[in-house]
Amino acid sequence: MSSTYGDKIKISIFGESHGNGIGVVIDGLPAGEKIDMDKVFVQMSRRAPGKDKTATPRKESDLPKVLSGMLDDTLTGAPLCAVIENTNTKSGDYSNLLSCPRPGHSDYTAFVKYNASNDIRGGGHFSGRLTAPIVFAGAICRQILEKNGIKIAAHINSIGTVKDKQFDPTNIDIKLIERLNTSSFALIDESAEEDMRNQVEEARMNLDSIGGTVECAVTGIEVGIGEPMFDGVEGVIAKAVFGVPAIKGIEFGKGFELSQMRGSQSNDPFRYVEGKVVTETNNCGGILGGITNGMPVIFRAAVKPTPSISQKQKTVDLQKKENSELEVHGRHDPCIVPRAVPVIEAVTAIAIINLM
Amino acid sequence: MSSTYGDKIKISIFGESHGNGIGVVIDGLPAGEKIDMDKVFVQMSRRAPGKDKTATPRKESDLPKVLSGMLDDTLTGAPLCAVIENTNTKSGDYSNLLSCPRPGHSDYTAFVKYNASNDIRGGGHFSGRLTAPIVFAGAICRQILEKNGIKIAAHINSIGTVKDKQFDPTNIDIKLIERLNTSSFALIDESAEEDMRNQVEEARMNLDSIGGTVECAVTGIEVGIGEPMFDGVEGVIAKAVFGVPAIKGIEFGKGFELSQMRGSQSNDPFRYVEGKVVTETNNCGGILGGITNGMPVIFRAAVKPTPSISQKQKTVDLQKKENSELEVHGRHDPCIVPRAVPVIEAVTAIAIINLM
Amino acid sequence: MSSTYGDKIKISIFGESHGNGIGVVIDGLPAGEKIDMDKVFVQMSRRAPGKDKTATPRKESDLPKVLSGMLDDTLTGAPLCAVIENTNTKSGDYSNLLSCPRPGHSDYTAFVKYNASNDIRGGGHFSGRLTAPIVFAGAICRQILEKNGIKIAAHINSIGTVKDKQFDPTNIDIKLIERLNTSSFALIDESAEEDMRNQVEEARMNLDSIGGTVECAVTGIEVGIGEPMFDGVEGVIAKAVFGVPAIKGIEFGKGFELSQMRGSQSNDPFRYVEGKVVTETNNCGGILGGITNGMPVIFRAAVKPTPSISQKQKTVDLQKKENSELEVHGRHDPCIVPRAVPVIEAVTAIAIINLM
Amino acid sequence: MSSTYGDKIKISIFGESHGNGIGVVIDGLPAGEKIDMDKVFVQMSRRAPGKDKTATPRKESDLPKVLSGMLDDTLTGAPLCAVIENTNTKSGDYSNLLSCPRPGHSDYTAFVKYNASNDIRGGGHFSGRLTAPIVFAGAICRQILEKNGIKIAAHINSIGTVKDKQFDPTNIDIKLIERLNTSSFALIDESAEEDMRNQVEEARMNLDSIGGTVECAVTGIEVGIGEPMFDGVEGVIAKAVFGVPAIKGIEFGKGFELSQMRGSQSNDPFRYVEGKVVTETNNCGGILGGITNGMPVIFRAAVKPTPSISQKQKTVDLQKKENSELEVHGRHDPCIVPRAVPVIEAVTAIAIINLM
Repeated sequence: MSSTYGDKIKISIFGESHGNGIGVVIDGLPAGEKIDMDKVFVQMSRRAPGKDKTATPRKESDLPKVLSGMLDDTLTGAPLCAVIENTNTKSGDYSNLLSCPRPGHSDYTAFVKYNASNDIRGGGHFSGRLTAPIVFAGAICRQILEKNGIKIAAHINSIGTVKDKQFDPTNIDIKLIERLNTSSFALIDESAEEDMRNQVEEARMNLDSIGGTVECAVTGIEVGIGEPMFDGVEGVIAKAVFGVPAIKGIEFGKGFELSQMRGSQSNDPFRYVEGKVVTETNNCGGILGGITNGMPVIFRAAVKPTPSISQKQKTVDLQKKENSELEVHGRHDPCIVPRAVPVIEAVTAIAIINLM
Repeated sequence: MSSTYGDKIKISIFGESHGNGIGVVIDGLPAGEKIDMDKVFVQMSRRAPGKDKTATPRKESDLPKVLSGMLDDTLTGAPLCAVIENTNTKSGDYSNLLSCPRPGHSDYTAFVKYNASNDIRGGGHFSGRLTAPIVFAGAICRQILEKNGIKIAAHINSIGTVKDKQFDPTNIDIKLIERLNTSSFALIDESAEEDMRNQVEEARMNLDSIGGTVECAVTGIEVGIGEPMFDGVEGVIAKAVFGVPAIKGIEFGKGFELSQMRGSQSNDPFRYVEGKVVTETNNCGGILGGITNGMPVIFRAAVKPTPSISQKQKTVDLQKKENSELEVHGRHDPCIVPRAVPVIEAVTAIAIINLM
Repeated sequence: MSSTYGDKIKISIFGESHGNGIGVVIDGLPAGEKIDMDKVFVQMSRRAPGKDKTATPRKESDLPKVLSGMLDDTLTGAPLCAVIENTNTKSGDYSNLLSCPRPGHSDYTAFVKYNASNDIRGGGHFSGRLTAPIVFAGAICRQILEKNGIKIAAHINSIGTVKDKQFDPTNIDIKLIERLNTSSFALIDESAEEDMRNQVEEARMNLDSIGGTVECAVTGIEVGIGEPMFDGVEGVIAKAVFGVPAIKGIEFGKGFELSQMRGSQSNDPFRYVEGKVVTETNNCGGILGGITNGMPVIFRAAVKPTPSISQKQKTVDLQKKENSELEVHGRHDPCIVPRAVPVIEAVTAIAIINLM
Repeated sequence: MSSTYGDKIKISIFGESHGNGIGVVIDGLPAGEKIDMDKVFVQMSRRAPGKDKTATPRKESDLPKVLSGMLDDTLTGAPLCAVIENTNTKSGDYSNLLSCPRPGHSDYTAFVKYNASNDIRGGGHFSGRLTAPIVFAGAICRQILEKNGIKIAAHINSIGTVKDKQFDPTNIDIKLIERLNTSSFALIDESAEEDMRNQVEEARMNLDSIGGTVECAVTGIEVGIGEPMFDGVEGVIAKAVFGVPAIKGIEFGKGFELSQMRGSQSNDPFRYVEGKVVTETNNCGGILGGITNGMPVIFRAAVKPTPSISQKQKTVDLQKKENSELEVHGRHDPCIVPRAVPVIEAVTAIAIINLM
């Protein structure tokens, strides 16, 4: 296993859905930084389940206990460990999964990889619940980034076929960022919410689930961040974002649309504006040669539909070695896109701080 | 800088477009493996420029000299270093780039990052020429993978608006793989070639360039490869693929299409076929929870149009600190997608061998 | 900070002496291994303070709580997190250390490094107490090593001027290993204990402390472990051993004695014994070219005297920026060598498992 | 294999004694630094063999060719690759080593590790010749360190039983450093040279070899460098130093002598001198809690006698699987300590720059 990330600020995530506790160790944080724990809890609350019909009714008490690395809200420089104890778990719901892996989940691959010894209850270490300590770690990192003028905001770019507006890639309003940063159904154009909720509700009524996309922007990042080739900004962010369950695609700037463009369209012209070099367009998503060019870094990630659905599904019985069927009756989100938004922001913060 | 990749088989790329030489050190290769150097040169030849009108007329003598790590075509276990000497370079073509960065290139970001000390001639360390040692390293790695039954093949998925057929994600023909592996214009449906070449030619006639997509498949990979979270197969491959210049997006399985699907459609049902667990569909691209499920690993990457175009473009003059214009008169590919195919295969081989 | 070790089995230590808790995350453990927790507690008990006059009278409840990675004493393959909560701490004892650093401690260097924000109480993250989670991690690792036939034993090689016998470097008795492995005052020749305790007691009566050396042996390790140059066995073990507070030297095989020998004496002759290649002597400590040769790996580490002594000492007052004096009245070991023995064994286990 | 070091400035060494070439890739160097190549060659010349009777008469043309990363003596920021071509090699001398491993060498361990595929001629990748690119890399790093006020000097601390004076650990004269830095038989007290050469000559006449120790000091290093636990200064330097062939021990400050001292003797009292915190003694070798305290960092390393001796030695025949004898008739140094001095300085420079 390797649930770790980063070489400057090292994040090590631990825990299993129905174990004694989950959490994170963050090694390499700068000593002396004041952390506003209320702001950390705002981010964790955005990710927490149970707020509305798009999310699972399961309640979590997700507030972490900080064991080390912080004294009176100030970072000591020592590794910070935060633990969230597991309290509300119902293992019974998952009992027959041991032999019949859920389609779209890691049950089968983890069963083979871990010699049938992994804790399969609730997804074990692969549970979406493990994104709680990720959001915690990201919330610490982004406060440090903000002191350096860097802000990160994401929104629900689409759910099913319903699309939000996208960021203006050359000019992202600070007020918009602040609004998105505290929203639990983050949209640029809030009028899209009703249609989105309708698609989610329709899926839920059909015992089904639905996917979507998240768009994320990083503003205030200076020119020259990132390394050529394999430690370029795209690769470093992608590795972090694919660490989030259910993400199956990522594109920077115009992304896949670039494949149908001409160079004369896609090249972003350089201009001096107020003595500063900017680009007139931002098709490259703020990254040239793997290195930031001072424009907002922008990417979109594809979120697959929640694999847990209550419909009967075809699977295999690994004990009996025969085909089988399965109905999953746990408590699950018909759409995880809204809750994925703060998680994407968090891993982006972790990626960016490791690039600095 | 960090032009390195991998922790099991470490790849360290060096060189600048117009310097004395470029090459790679590969550390961690298994001792005793026989390498077929002819097969290595086939891959390098697929990437080499100058073969037809889609590529630059510049000739390269891209055959590398192996300095260490190999004795009579057998790996010694010591780090393998291969060097390609630079012979045919015309620095004069690039002289005014020092003050006027080319749009879409790394000139500006590298200028700021490296304090104006980077070797800007021909893109320096950011040149597409640096993909030659990547292909060399990949060709070594894929021979080792092939002995373990793993094959990698990619094709031109699209150029501009012209699309090739895609891989059958549940069943990839071995003959198709072999054909693609030696093709310099790799297509599943070869009838698409003419339309693709027409779009490239049209761009070229307009002093323009054009983008596309590459699809890549890995077959024969066993169940259980990859780690949860940040070292999942998606993240590890993505980090390698974004190391290739001009790649701006990647998606696994159905990728962005999943965002408009329902869980009942996207979940791949498990079935027993001939005593082996398979999935009926392969929307997840062979990866569940970041871990291989035994089906082909499939992804697509977006390639932006070559930024070097001969049209006049808007840029800035960094010396005079004013707006300026630029015409780039070097020798450039109007479309790099065909040559990107073996490079994508190479970085995939490097990524996969590091997951094993 | 970087309180992490290893790239195969990653150890991440966290905690501060007087914080809420200390512990460790171990990432990369093999799924399915049964762990005998009683044996783990034996090792932790060997390190625990308060057993006799060589150790501090402070009591610790050092039994860790496993939060993740283990289900019914079997490793799940997910990261294992173990936490020891802090219960018995007296912060008052350390209050004036904030301005007056203790000689021989990290107070001054940590004060500068962490901008005066580190948790200085009881040494903070630099406290010897942090060796408790190290011993826990080592105890897990050594059980896995033992299943592969590898055993690790250390003993008090010397305290002050009193020396124990040393290991027979070519033939280490399994019964000796077992006896040492459960001893809290581990000696090959137990008759040395009285003289050693007398030197410790003499130091204690003089409000002073005393150093010593620890010798450690690894048996059953196969030929060919370790990498050339910077990941040789010596370097990998040394990096782990210098992670233990108070260690200031390490030597392998004959070590510094080799500097006065001739090649004809120091070279270990190869011989076949029962069809197996062995060496007649083992001056190289089982390592040639950084790689194990099948003989026991043997090294000695130098332990400096406990820097905490109750005598008046010269120091500076960092607030007043003037010379000052200091008496340290906490509870401290006059000799930490006996407790260092299981810690050295633990880091050696962690190092060896990362070499495999 | 893993002949790499560092995570900030990554060093990757390649080559085999009798292959086509040896060299190094250095990734992460700062762009824009001017390098004085004459100074680099001075260091390489100090390590080069053939200068006097302590060294092998074999001539090497050790001047490296820089392939990348440097333009007109200025670092470009791209990975720097330097290659030394092999010209003067006599493979015939080593032919029977394939079946009969030389005692004290890596022949046997490498034979097993690399499945008999390693290039055994002249030690292959384990040859002392590979220290040439290490010295090159160190010479680059130390020029960068010197611009930050950090100087590194080593001397022959002892050969056999003859000892040089040691550094004054609290005050190292700049003139002494400069003298040592250009000396090929580096001594603090030059009157020791004759006795040392006599011991070497005596060993040589007896077809034998002799060991010694090297002492190294780092001055001008600021307070607060190094990390707690496993990335402490001792561990990081030790890992680099054990990368040098023939090193079997390392001790910092008073090292093993501390084991016989009392805390009241070994603790270094803090004092203010000219407004700066210093210590009156420097028994800790400038390192407290793994972190520099502003005093010189001082360590000693034990060098075993050259394993290549011309006497008949007992070994095994791995082909015939029986005991055998061996006489080594290559060209070898009876004492490598003088040539080890610049190598120790080089790895120390590489270690220190990775700690900054």
